[in-house]
Amino acid sequence: MTTTQGVLARVDTDFAALQGKWLDWLRIPSISAQPRHAADCRAAAEFARADLESLGFSARLVETPGHPVVLAHHAGPGGNAPHLLFYGHYDVQPPEPLELWHSAPFDPAIVDGPHGPRVVARGAVDDKGQVAMWLAAMRAWHAETGSLPVAITAVIEGEEEVGSVNLEAFLAAHAPELQADIAVISDTNMWDINTPAITTGLRGLVYLQIDIKAASRDLHSGMFGGSARNPINALTRALAALHEDNGRIAIPGFYDGVAELTNSQAVSWAALGFDESKFLGDIGLSIPAGEAGRGALERLWARPTCDVNGIWGGYAGPGAKTVIASEAGAKVSFRLVPGQNPVAIIEGFRQFMRAHLPADVQMNVQEFAHGPGIEVPAESRFVQAARDALAEEYGRPAVLAGCGGSIPVVGSLKRMLGLDSLLMGFGLDDDQIHSPNEKFEVACFRHGVRSHVRLLGLLAAG
Amino acid sequence: MTTTQGVLARVDTDFAALQGKWLDWLRIPSISAQPRHAADCRAAAEFARADLESLGFSARLVETPGHPVVLAHHAGPGGNAPHLLFYGHYDVQPPEPLELWHSAPFDPAIVDGPHGPRVVARGAVDDKGQVAMWLAAMRAWHAETGSLPVAITAVIEGEEEVGSVNLEAFLAAHAPELQADIAVISDTNMWDINTPAITTGLRGLVYLQIDIKAASRDLHSGMFGGSARNPINALTRALAALHEDNGRIAIPGFYDGVAELTNSQAVSWAALGFDESKFLGDIGLSIPAGEAGRGALERLWARPTCDVNGIWGGYAGPGAKTVIASEAGAKVSFRLVPGQNPVAIIEGFRQFMRAHLPADVQMNVQEFAHGPGIEVPAESRFVQAARDALAEEYGRPAVLAGCGGSIPVVGSLKRMLGLDSLLMGFGLDDDQIHSPNEKFEVACFRHGVRSHVRLLGLLAAG
Repeated sequence: MTTTQGVLARVDTDFAALQGKWLDWLRIPSISAQPRHAADCRAAAEFARADLESLGFSARLVETPGHPVVLAHHAGPGGNAPHLLFYGHYDVQPPEPLELWHSAPFDPAIVDGPHGPRVVARGAVDDKGQVAMWLAAMRAWHAETGSLPVAITAVIEGEEEVGSVNLEAFLAAHAPELQADIAVISDTNMWDINTPAITTGLRGLVYLQIDIKAASRDLHSGMFGGSARNPINALTRALAALHEDNGRIAIPGFYDGVAELTNSQAVSWAALGFDESKFLGDIGLSIPAGEAGRGALERLWARPTCDVNGIWGGYAGPGAKTVIASEAGAKVSFRLVPGQNPVAIIEGFRQFMRAHLPADVQMNVQEFAHGPGIEVPAESRFVQAARDALAEEYGRPAVLAGCGGSIPVVGSLKRMLGLDSLLMGFGLDDDQIHSPNEKFEVACFRHGVRSHVRLLGLLAAG
Repeated sequence: MTTTQGVLARVDTDFAALQGKWLDWLRIPSISAQPRHAADCRAAAEFARADLESLGFSARLVETPGHPVVLAHHAGPGGNAPHLLFYGHYDVQPPEPLELWHSAPFDPAIVDGPHGPRVVARGAVDDKGQVAMWLAAMRAWHAETGSLPVAITAVIEGEEEVGSVNLEAFLAAHAPELQADIAVISDTNMWDINTPAITTGLRGLVYLQIDIKAASRDLHSGMFGGSARNPINALTRALAALHEDNGRIAIPGFYDGVAELTNSQAVSWAALGFDESKFLGDIGLSIPAGEAGRGALERLWARPTCDVNGIWGGYAGPGAKTVIASEAGAKVSFRLVPGQNPVAIIEGFRQFMRAHLPADVQMNVQEFAHGPGIEVPAESRFVQAARDALAEEYGRPAVLAGCGGSIPVVGSLKRMLGLDSLLMGFGLDDDQIHSPNEKFEVACFRHGVRSHVRLLGLLAAG
């Protein structure tokens, strides 16, 4: 029996206790957005700190202007064992609306589902459950061997659900003690209950607001219609011009740096048999949007998009008001893929809109977010070890998946610390994160713990 | 001295008394929109009824579910004298915001301006001042001759400022006693202080709301962007398609029935020397909107338009929310010209939007208003008499003007009673109707009274 096999056996033997730690943590309502829960956030941080300390970490809370960050170090076996930085967060989304929960959100319920028992609670999976998973893997290693097989730094923040507003300052202030070979993050999903996934690409985000102003005051459409510019007409025309008929985005240079799918991506994504009809049918739609001539997963994972997230102007009350408004505005965001330059996209949008608005219409563009798309190197020894670990645990290869959304910390770790991330998560698409009755399958948790045990073992063996 | 000259002399002799009647009427705060002023509305109606009775009319108040209508008849000289139906309204807009008035809105102030004295009060011109003008003309005729030179029916309603909600029912119920040869309405403007105008065209109005629904719930733009339809993107594209690049409206059949300007219209409007640069400059704009290749007055008076009066959808709060909304909507209105069929326009809009929205996007169109554009025959004996009266009074010809807006009663009178309207008004563009410090130039009032004296004389002689 190898050491890893011993640790895996320990997971199974001690599973009730490992699960108990997870449930205990879920009982602390660490809602970062609600000031009255500040003490609970600190308690959840302290819970994690104490847990890490009990595993041999030197662990402390680092204060921030908001909720504290748990920072812990374990030297591992020394020598040239790799050094992993595990990132996660202990804060959770508000549970409201409470009336839609079938059990109290902070009193975890174990409920039978189609895949066996599941734990229902706020934070069950996002992200306490996924963090509890790698903490449990470390506990099993510690229990079996008295130590850990690799050097580990753990960073567990308390403000992910409110935009990680103090994280970059924390990373900057503690950069020297955050050096590592790779960041490991469990905040993503599996492909399905039987098929593990490693996320290797994340789309970036540019989020803008455009405000336009035409006449100096609201006008009567009878007196002025046909002579005075209508800013809503003008805005809708300019926004409509952002897309060509084939769904491509018309801003000059927008696709600069966008790579075509590699053959292996194309082949492996095609093999996944993604059912877009079902994906859309579940939300009441039937006709795919996005660029013509592209595959469904390609459009979701590897192609940039432009969405108008909000629009306003003029009269929106009941009945009729024959007004030509003086102002109108919209929120416009772009999902970006690796290779695109967010700053160039913002400037391109600005120039495009200016060119598509009449010259006597004033325009102002505000920026609320910009981050590039991120490619996680899929060929590193760490990704290979993760693929091996998952293949051993599940008896089938992991999907190398894209992700349509953004995980800002991945960009921060890369930009500020030079760290690539390994995104190995065990959530399912139906886990209802951020919604009532959030759940995590106990089977996912157990396989997640065991996969992390294997990952640490494989990396130690080098 | 002709009879008319005698009556004109009487206007000058009695002017203080005629003006006094006007000011007394203005002191009654007949604000139809405000229930606490219901008794004031009735008092203003009774004031007009008594005034008409003193001129030999049989006059009464006709009750409605809202404010009463003043209805009065004078048989005139008998024989084949023409029968005129004068329409006006005694109700006024609310005076708010009160703090912007320089004098109390219901305590008429006589103030010196660039054109001599003016009366400042709510209703000074709209419409009490203009009605007081034709009442004064009748008073002068009555004083000089003991009668009136034509048969007259007077209808003075009290709900014009709240949409004339009970007027059509009144017209229907009293159709037999509303028979006349022509309706005469003073609720429009002169071309400028020295140049009288007869309004010969009114644009119609179709006012619609479109609501569209895409996905069954709001979506995360990272997870769904590139596959799920964004209803705001879809709506802006469909709305933008309503206009061609040259400003023409793209709905098939939209221009069916739209006549080109006649030569005489084109020549006379060009001769007006309308300064569109100043018109737009006054509201902070410099580039005319509307159809390319059309004259400024043509676009305002004789061409239909399409304006988006309001638009909404998605997130409009501060900062960023990466949502793909499930719904969006807009208010869309069309100004119509004579010849266009409002019902066909509504159906055309519906079909156009359906064709320009993806098939899995649901669409609902509500209708809030529809009325056709109205051409007032410019060649009738009544218009000719009015042109002669105005030319005599002002020493220059009247402008035959279009009007970009709608005066719904004109359509109701035509549709329900078969009555054409003669629109001879004496307001100025800067009278600030519906705004604080509404005013009416005393010179306009005096010439208006005298012009009506001449009109009655010419028609009697006719």
